[in-house]
Amino acid sequence: MPGSLISHIGIAVSELDAAIEKYRLLLNGAQPHITEVAEQKVKVAIFSGGIHESGGRIELVAPTAPDSPITQFLAKRGEGLHHICIYVDNIEEKLKELKKAGMRLIDESPRIGAEGNKIAFVHPSSTNGVLIELEERAR
Amino acid sequence: MPGSLISHIGIAVSELDAAIEKYRLLLNGAQPHITEVAEQKVKVAIFSGGIHESGGRIELVAPTAPDSPITQFLAKRGEGLHHICIYVDNIEEKLKELKKAGMRLIDESPRIGAEGNKIAFVHPSSTNGVLIELEERAR
Repeated sequence: MPGSLISHIGIAVSELDAAIEKYRLLLNGAQPHITEVAEQKVKVAIFSGGIHESGGRIELVAPTAPDSPITQFLAKRGEGLHHICIYVDNIEEKLKELKKAGMRLIDESPRIGAEGNKIAFVHPSSTNGVLIELEERAR
Repeated sequence: MPGSLISHIGIAVSELDAAIEKYRLLLNGAQPHITEVAEQKVKVAIFSGGIHESGGRIELVAPTAPDSPITQFLAKRGEGLHHICIYVDNIEEKLKELKKAGMRLIDESPRIGAEGNKIAFVHPSSTNGVLIELEERAR
């Protein structure tokens, strides 16, 4: 399918409101959609270019608890790019294919992401230091 | 304009061919377009979703010389996400606006990028640790 390879990128930030102000300025004043992902103990501000499904979104991710994975990331690496999420057509098949090629998977089978799509993470040690989320494109 | 906010993301890698093999697997076998940016002393593999102008591309960037900025990045941080490039409508106006807001600019005025568009970089200290490239969307 032609178009954006990237569903979204996630940026880890410590103070969500301050970060939103900066990114509103960069992204032409657009108001982000704010959502909370209880399972990951994070609050997320989602900037999109108008058509949500077209991908290419920018998500600011801030922890809501000291034991959030993002708290750990911030302590270790500081604020910055956290992950990229790319579209795949069939996530089960893709995970099998990557495993067969020797890639290290964080999720061996898909789980349901915040927006109801099937997602899975690949470990950065297999992908040149980049934490990659796979997302099955809504059909 | 609706669509992807992101023109592309850049991933710093040390060995381009090995990285291409991994990302071809992730990105459904697509062959990247390879280009060299002499000014930055880098070789770039560009994966796009078919429509180049739609954005959301993934670019693997490898140094071609010891004094490339990417060589320095790899020595300091290792392989990983290097920058994101976002679209702006009028880059001169945007740079003025960001400067007025106190953001630190790497390029005070735009220069011409590898693909002929006007680009400029914003310093990560002003954007939550993320190196951001602005690109004026082709009109």
